[in-house]
Amino acid sequence: MARAYDKGMVPAVTVPRLALYLRKLRELQARGVRTISSQDLADKIDLNAAQIRKDFSYFGEFGVRGVGYDVPRLIDEIMKSLGLNRSWSVIIVGAGLLGTALARYKGFSEQGFRLVGMFDSSPKVIGKSYGPGKVRAMSELEQFTREEAVDIAIITVPAHAAQATIDRIVAPNIGVKAVLNFAPVKVFAPKDVVVRQVDLSSELMFLSFYLDRE
Amino acid sequence: MARAYDKGMVPAVTVPRLALYLRKLRELQARGVRTISSQDLADKIDLNAAQIRKDFSYFGEFGVRGVGYDVPRLIDEIMKSLGLNRSWSVIIVGAGLLGTALARYKGFSEQGFRLVGMFDSSPKVIGKSYGPGKVRAMSELEQFTREEAVDIAIITVPAHAAQATIDRIVAPNIGVKAVLNFAPVKVFAPKDVVVRQVDLSSELMFLSFYLDRE
Repeated sequence: MARAYDKGMVPAVTVPRLALYLRKLRELQARGVRTISSQDLADKIDLNAAQIRKDFSYFGEFGVRGVGYDVPRLIDEIMKSLGLNRSWSVIIVGAGLLGTALARYKGFSEQGFRLVGMFDSSPKVIGKSYGPGKVRAMSELEQFTREEAVDIAIITVPAHAAQATIDRIVAPNIGVKAVLNFAPVKVFAPKDVVVRQVDLSSELMFLSFYLDRE
Repeated sequence: MARAYDKGMVPAVTVPRLALYLRKLRELQARGVRTISSQDLADKIDLNAAQIRKDFSYFGEFGVRGVGYDVPRLIDEIMKSLGLNRSWSVIIVGAGLLGTALARYKGFSEQGFRLVGMFDSSPKVIGKSYGPGKVRAMSELEQFTREEAVDIAIITVPAHAAQATIDRIVAPNIGVKAVLNFAPVKVFAPKDVVVRQVDLSSELMFLSFYLDRE
């Protein structure tokens, strides 16, 4: 009965919701819950049940009326859809306070993001290890990235160094295809490279913007 | 000639752009640039000149045709508009790796966000200092927050503790009106409290989502 499931059908706008479902479903699974209705899930995460059913419809029709969705299967489908059913290799470029904190952040490895190396230009930190991340010299960046077939680069260098750093690793012969940039500057990459930006200063400015209007 | 400037007119959607302009204009000012045209600024940050002129029009009409905008005045207007022309008091709740890294993040104080305290439940870290943030016991949270008239709370506690923590400080008699939540869980607050969420796991899932489709 299940409709053929084409992963390519799941639109990118659903990603934050899929991440939210996944987190809640894992919690429920850990507590022994085996099935859940869209309405029960909706109540738990303050979303609309119709929206949830629409999102889950991309996985084929496996919700059973009056019973609900099979929780382990739902987790499996969401993980597949998010590309979490495999392991991705990650480097962190910039071993300052933020970079080293991220290196020790357990949430990464739990999701299949495997830190394979860190890089920094300061002799003070080169050779040190933070969690699974041993810090190498920036001069080794290209060779290491190519040889280890690194998938994802997390950029925590200062703003002025961010673009040049990214240019080095997204070069076609090096091959990084995904960048998570924490440097407080807008960065550019070729069209086939996905870039996400986490800008802590901007987030704080949103807060002060609203506070100031009270 | 200047149009009366009503700060309330600047819409929230412009905040990320204003943050971007501010950063670039400060850079330019540091290099001695005194005036800039919308087109020159547009070229530098890969935005549309008409969009920039529209955003700046909220500040009144002070761009001079053929000369451009006065950089120091523009910086001043943007800061006023973002509520950055005053100082905001900030606490960090959760003195784990991320919380302590954020406490030492210089970008905060540079923007007028003044860390006044940190909180944690672990006796191992209570009493320690990270940058300007001395860690206090969670039992002191409400009293400290009220007495110091804390504006902003940065939440870096584990997911399961986030909502209860936020509930304690946004209570009307305590008075926090802005929350930056790093806990990987959706949180709720009264309507008059602004909440921003930084979800590192979701950002990584965006990357794996796209990588998996290549």
